[in-house]
Amino acid sequence: MIIDHLDEPLPGSSLLPTPTGDAYTDPDIFEKEQAEIFEKMWNCVLRSDSLPSPGHWKTVTVGREEIIVVRSRREGIKAYFNVCAHRGMRVCTAGEGKNKTLQCGYHAWTYALEGDLVAAPNLTSMPDVDRKQYGLKPVHVREWLGYVWVCLAEEPPNFEREVLGEVRTRFGEVESIDNYGIEHLRLGDTKTYDVAANWKLIIENFMECYHCATIHPELTEVIPEFADGLASQRKNGEVHGSSFGEEIQGFTVDGSASGVHQLPAIAPDQDRKYYAITVKPQVFINTVPDHVIIHRMFPVSESRTIVECDWLFLPEVVDKITSGELDVSKSVELFHRVNLQDFNACELTQPSMRSKAYSSGGALVPSEHHIQEFHAWWYRTLGFEQVAAAQQETEKAAV
Amino acid sequence: MIIDHLDEPLPGSSLLPTPTGDAYTDPDIFEKEQAEIFEKMWNCVLRSDSLPSPGHWKTVTVGREEIIVVRSRREGIKAYFNVCAHRGMRVCTAGEGKNKTLQCGYHAWTYALEGDLVAAPNLTSMPDVDRKQYGLKPVHVREWLGYVWVCLAEEPPNFEREVLGEVRTRFGEVESIDNYGIEHLRLGDTKTYDVAANWKLIIENFMECYHCATIHPELTEVIPEFADGLASQRKNGEVHGSSFGEEIQGFTVDGSASGVHQLPAIAPDQDRKYYAITVKPQVFINTVPDHVIIHRMFPVSESRTIVECDWLFLPEVVDKITSGELDVSKSVELFHRVNLQDFNACELTQPSMRSKAYSSGGALVPSEHHIQEFHAWWYRTLGFEQVAAAQQETEKAAV
Amino acid sequence: MIIDHLDEPLPGSSLLPTPTGDAYTDPDIFEKEQAEIFEKMWNCVLRSDSLPSPGHWKTVTVGREEIIVVRSRREGIKAYFNVCAHRGMRVCTAGEGKNKTLQCGYHAWTYALEGDLVAAPNLTSMPDVDRKQYGLKPVHVREWLGYVWVCLAEEPPNFEREVLGEVRTRFGEVESIDNYGIEHLRLGDTKTYDVAANWKLIIENFMECYHCATIHPELTEVIPEFADGLASQRKNGEVHGSSFGEEIQGFTVDGSASGVHQLPAIAPDQDRKYYAITVKPQVFINTVPDHVIIHRMFPVSESRTIVECDWLFLPEVVDKITSGELDVSKSVELFHRVNLQDFNACELTQPSMRSKAYSSGGALVPSEHHIQEFHAWWYRTLGFEQVAAAQQETEKAAV
Repeated sequence: MIIDHLDEPLPGSSLLPTPTGDAYTDPDIFEKEQAEIFEKMWNCVLRSDSLPSPGHWKTVTVGREEIIVVRSRREGIKAYFNVCAHRGMRVCTAGEGKNKTLQCGYHAWTYALEGDLVAAPNLTSMPDVDRKQYGLKPVHVREWLGYVWVCLAEEPPNFEREVLGEVRTRFGEVESIDNYGIEHLRLGDTKTYDVAANWKLIIENFMECYHCATIHPELTEVIPEFADGLASQRKNGEVHGSSFGEEIQGFTVDGSASGVHQLPAIAPDQDRKYYAITVKPQVFINTVPDHVIIHRMFPVSESRTIVECDWLFLPEVVDKITSGELDVSKSVELFHRVNLQDFNACELTQPSMRSKAYSSGGALVPSEHHIQEFHAWWYRTLGFEQVAAAQQETEKAAV
Repeated sequence: MIIDHLDEPLPGSSLLPTPTGDAYTDPDIFEKEQAEIFEKMWNCVLRSDSLPSPGHWKTVTVGREEIIVVRSRREGIKAYFNVCAHRGMRVCTAGEGKNKTLQCGYHAWTYALEGDLVAAPNLTSMPDVDRKQYGLKPVHVREWLGYVWVCLAEEPPNFEREVLGEVRTRFGEVESIDNYGIEHLRLGDTKTYDVAANWKLIIENFMECYHCATIHPELTEVIPEFADGLASQRKNGEVHGSSFGEEIQGFTVDGSASGVHQLPAIAPDQDRKYYAITVKPQVFINTVPDHVIIHRMFPVSESRTIVECDWLFLPEVVDKITSGELDVSKSVELFHRVNLQDFNACELTQPSMRSKAYSSGGALVPSEHHIQEFHAWWYRTLGFEQVAAAQQETEKAAV
Repeated sequence: MIIDHLDEPLPGSSLLPTPTGDAYTDPDIFEKEQAEIFEKMWNCVLRSDSLPSPGHWKTVTVGREEIIVVRSRREGIKAYFNVCAHRGMRVCTAGEGKNKTLQCGYHAWTYALEGDLVAAPNLTSMPDVDRKQYGLKPVHVREWLGYVWVCLAEEPPNFEREVLGEVRTRFGEVESIDNYGIEHLRLGDTKTYDVAANWKLIIENFMECYHCATIHPELTEVIPEFADGLASQRKNGEVHGSSFGEEIQGFTVDGSASGVHQLPAIAPDQDRKYYAITVKPQVFINTVPDHVIIHRMFPVSESRTIVECDWLFLPEVVDKITSGELDVSKSVELFHRVNLQDFNACELTQPSMRSKAYSSGGALVPSEHHIQEFHAWWYRTLGFEQVAAAQQETEKAAV
């Protein structure tokens, strides 16, 4: 449902081709995606404030790896493969905890929060053991928007260009995402969805609004232009968000007022607008005047994806939610329903991807044409350019 | 237990070879069977009268595909791949229903019962979209014996020759299957079995009666000649069915009278006889004087097969069953027990197919020799003739 | 925790390399292990006294095969593939039983306890069927230490050299394992563990005591030298067992007296000692003065292993356990806890074997160096010598 960078549909266009079904069902292609996409790009994994003080750690899954994310004493947030350098046991064996050091429970190899090996039985009699070489294997870390982002590649892609730059560009120069002050917001609610569908179906779903009229009655009530299937951020060459309907008082499940203060620094024309961005490969950001919704995807297999969705509010709002003074359930309920509606559609699409009837792919209508850019990126990233070119030739010849 | 086309055992014969165990356990061979057998041949999928009026539809699995079978308004029963031509979502998302059109729940692409695309959001602004090309992908349909048969091949095999002709020939000229008027019968009872065995073990089991004395006490009581392992349809060159025992009053679990009228048009010598036919690849037909039993197999994996068994009676009998006036449970119970006994044997055979001790196959006794014809057909259909020839040479040399 | 044949660690040594993670996670390597190790070597499968009289049989799993072990009438204990020579059904369909013959439940082919085909329906009309050729396929059998050992290879390795010889050599000439009279002991208790780890992780764990201080508080209390990580059987070139602590009265969970008589024939210096041997590929033998503990491993997949552990006592002790006169739960509890602690460590190691951080393996400390001999044997047995040599070169170059 999130629209990436949509232009007007081409006049009088034909339908456009999609990848063939095996892109969504072949375990080998999924392994390649894990290796070339999720284990090489920046992944948004958890909230920085969920590690409040030195020694706090959590384990997260990135690609096919389990990663320890820990607030260190001297070097801020650090991340490591959760594999002891000695015999390989999981060093952290729970989802989270707080410790002065990270100690493996098998042979008591002990690591500083900053990663070096600092103690082990008989270590003094093995003076030639390099404490850094036999430390925990580190992973690149960045913090942005209040989240920890990690990259498992030895040489990570440039964060400023690949993540920050792209997002700011899409929001345009004036109505910058910075106005929303997302890094200062706090967690009002969070929900986890276990979706029986390939991660690309979820991205494609977020990228188009041709389905909105059919499956999102509440959302199209709040933002009437979605009912036309054109959830555009650019119209006639101009950047814009999608406007609330005239009678709508807030971004809530019934369009009533949310009771929540608007974010202080947003521009006048962000006042009654909805913006949406996809940060490839696994983040969706939605902004409305009084809160921000962030989705993170964690692909598990070619046919299963975990999605975590956070609803972020101003700190004073979260305080009131916690004290029971304020109820934001009508705000949360709107996108929660959208999520359930979308993921249900993805789950009913996944099984057909195996069908002979989808063996040459499906079709994109003109208002879905920007999904083709996502497909082109996917082909390029996996080294399938020639396949893609050949396929498009075939499709053109067939049309 | 069903005997296909059995001649007398060869006098003084040796044991005969069978395929090696991988034929029953290799997932790649199973995929080939799905592609070359179940997705190319005619499959009997459901009863025609389970779709009583236009708009009634059901979904069924054929090979690896989910198929919609629907009674259309103008063209009788039709069948389609359950895949939307747009983005591929399942068009029908339940097991059955009744609708005026078939509408995909994702983007509201809407198809006539006859298959063409008739509506979609913004379709009028896409005048170049061919309503037939972007209709539901059709599947060949035939009706026979009161059942819907479908074929997923682009060019289906000749139904008259491959299905009708073969069955009539086996029943012989006089004692034709037509006498049973199966297409006019109705469903008295139905049972579904989830069998942890390869579909070929189930066919082979139905094709021989060498096991009858060991596992079917009730059946051999009713039909004593089965105890000799020779459930033949041809004897001394003559067509014949297997006769009931002298004291037997009906084809019931205890041999007592069934209380059901005999089918009106059967020939005098079909009066106390049991006939059985295998229609490759997935149908078994058994006839007795007062009812007909039809099995349909749906292979799920190399080691799992769903079997559906229907008991068919005259319409007036079914009316009395429904009203509670008549109890046919003793008739149904006989073949239900036979099914349970057979499927248990198949399930205890399946695991051994992986054993080194079965790596050069098993042995057929003389009275099982007609199973070899099934094996020869299987080798031929999968393009394994040379393998089969070489194997038989090896076996002969070894013997 | 069992130490195979440990010498003192090399002075001033570096860490040593281990196999890479795929050795523990690749299903193809596991299939190769089943074929080349478990289906070719001698496996200890069950206690001889669990088949007390002719006709008693049990089924066991060896490698990927199900085997019938039966006490015959004329030839002692025999073992067969559990596959009928006719159509392959499991001949024995339960875990154990007692019968005069072994009869297949499908077509009633009937085998003598000594294996030959002795009866089948219509067998007299098939005079050319060789009763031995169509008998049950036999498996080699030996009895030792009160256990039945089987080997599935056509030509089994020499039992005296590969099993007996190796064990006696390790125990040394004087303090022979024969002193324990294991073949006369009886079963006091038995426990089965379903471990979610590769079988090699379990062997490696048994082979080193570097982990003892960290995870085995009860065991290091009883045998204090284990806390140093050196559970050696050879020290300064001399054979020795590991001594109980000075205050320790018995090999029990709290070091108190066990209340059990010492085995009668053990040598004076075996009096307060613990010995441990690994009999590759699947047996661990531990001896203490008053009982013997025997583990048998049954690998199920690359990431799952069943372990059965028996506690053996003198017959008169077992009689008292049975009558309730004697409670040996404190003796049993010690190694049961050790097992739970070890298997937990293995299960927390298994998932990391897939990590990129373990893609060039882990490290052995000097006191674990004898595990390298196990790895060298494994490389050799699977035909990976060149791989191993190349890997060691690479590792050396890297260090």
